Amino acid sequence: MGKLLVVGSVALDTVRTPFGEATEVLGGSATFFSVAASYFTNVDLIAVIGEDFPEAHLEFLKSRHIDVAGLEKRPGQTFRWKGEYTYQLNEARTLDTRLNVFETFRPKIAAQYRSPGMLFLGNIDPELQLSVLNQMERPKLVACDSMNYWIESKKPQLLEVLKRVDTLLLNDSELRELSGDWNVHRAGRWVLGRGPRRVVVKRGEYGALLIEPGKTFFVPAFPLEEVFDPTGAGDSFAGGFLGYLARTGDLSSEGLRRAMVCGAVMGSYAVAKFSISGFDGVTPLSLQQRIAEFHELTHVDLAGTIG
Amino acid sequence: MGKLLVVGSVALDTVRTPFGEATEVLGGSATFFSVAASYFTNVDLIAVIGEDFPEAHLEFLKSRHIDVAGLEKRPGQTFRWKGEYTYQLNEARTLDTRLNVFETFRPKIAAQYRSPGMLFLGNIDPELQLSVLNQMERPKLVACDSMNYWIESKKPQLLEVLKRVDTLLLNDSELRELSGDWNVHRAGRWVLGRGPRRVVVKRGEYGALLIEPGKTFFVPAFPLEEVFDPTGAGDSFAGGFLGYLARTGDLSSEGLRRAMVCGAVMGSYAVAKFSISGFDGVTPLSLQQRIAEFHELTHVDLAGTIG
Repeated sequence: MGKLLVVGSVALDTVRTPFGEATEVLGGSATFFSVAASYFTNVDLIAVIGEDFPEAHLEFLKSRHIDVAGLEKRPGQTFRWKGEYTYQLNEARTLDTRLNVFETFRPKIAAQYRSPGMLFLGNIDPELQLSVLNQMERPKLVACDSMNYWIESKKPQLLEVLKRVDTLLLNDSELRELSGDWNVHRAGRWVLGRGPRRVVVKRGEYGALLIEPGKTFFVPAFPLEEVFDPTGAGDSFAGGFLGYLARTGDLSSEGLRRAMVCGAVMGSYAVAKFSISGFDGVTPLSLQQRIAEFHELTHVDLAGTIG
Repeated sequence: MGKLLVVGSVALDTVRTPFGEATEVLGGSATFFSVAASYFTNVDLIAVIGEDFPEAHLEFLKSRHIDVAGLEKRPGQTFRWKGEYTYQLNEARTLDTRLNVFETFRPKIAAQYRSPGMLFLGNIDPELQLSVLNQMERPKLVACDSMNYWIESKKPQLLEVLKRVDTLLLNDSELRELSGDWNVHRAGRWVLGRGPRRVVVKRGEYGALLIEPGKTFFVPAFPLEEVFDPTGAGDSFAGGFLGYLARTGDLSSEGLRRAMVCGAVMGSYAVAKFSISGFDGVTPLSLQQRIAEFHELTHVDLAGTIG
């Protein structure tokens, strides 16, 4: 099968948490996604950076075998985001957003990227997501993310995107806002009536749900005594989830469940340190071990429990 | 082994949710606990009611084979609680509490109840919990619940209770307040250093955690598209959990995991309707089916996921 393509943002983040502060570190939805996915498969990255983007970051992405030929360098500054978290570590408060070169980003998909095996549309303007889809041969699987800002300002365009997407990944508050329904299971069913075949609901420290017609699968968050910086957890989850699916091509119910565990594992690395430093030192063996630990976390033999 | 004994409150609840209102319906921690546990084992109930307690409620408890000989009737009115929930359905706002006969409740444990197999100390004054323990032969398992009110007003006494308890069941906000730690896993470890061998952390729609030294088990909440009234969910969870343990006497890791699923199942019934009506129509077969559905909800075969 073809490779995994991601279109999204690459940013320089300044993040404050109760445990410290990091200034102008590597961030962005496409960054976390492709680094996480790179542990499972080869990733092609399409995004935009400014002239000030540090060469070391480019080298790092290449070292993860991420194809950065589609990472367009344009005159001006790289997208910057500044945010902070309280002790609750659940939702970031945005202190400053400077779109810079991202403001006029109109992804042009070069010929060699137009028929990926799987496509992830990171959290960008739904109109850009549509324009990417219009330039593509239909991949085996299209997944997308979004956020409250687009749900509020471009809902009709987002609903158009949904018609052409197999898998929607959202966090629970976004899903509630999109559907107008507080109950996450009804909200998931609402989405299933609008295009996607499945919804992945990300719930931070409470794990994630995979909602498909008539069935639901639950994966917990890996139990961590230290959560340092939640930035990028959701995109890292998406990277693990789609990276695993692209690696195996297995879209069976069992394959999707394994992919959910891979997502939860990559999310757990992302939150351990600032930026993408949580992935430092992750090896195929340590990754395999953490995946296996999810068995202990959820396994229960229910045969003959009562009766 | 001996029976399951619960000491707690029996109340008449008036509850308002976005979906309706119920006036002076059967409630209280010991009520939800014993009704839920009655699907697994015989329960002895120790609590206090006033002269106004409806005979029909007593008859209902008896119909569930709950031993109500220890349900003391005293001059005055039954404990009343009035609360309401918003759409979020997570935490009740108390509108009115009238302790009535509960105010002077000093549980005297009659001889035939002093050596139960397992004991659940419902959410009552920690001093009363201690006085119950002082009247007992040490049961095989002692579990207790508490709430923010006691954590704030009687923490030293609550810490005394913990020294004599095997299993603490709390919801996550209570656990955070008790330990002074936002991280639920560190908070769980804090409790394990103060007496209990395990902590069950109830997280409402996000399920529950069983934290033991060096290991954690996670059970999701049963996916419900309609949650009507969360009152009693936690006590029903405790009833399913301890009811199953009392039925089997199996305190192995696997037995505790099955008990967690039984807890989650009974919680899911409790929230479906007002008061204890969510249990109407539950049969051994429907119960068995719902337990089995948890397999589908969490099962994943991780052998050879990567590597």
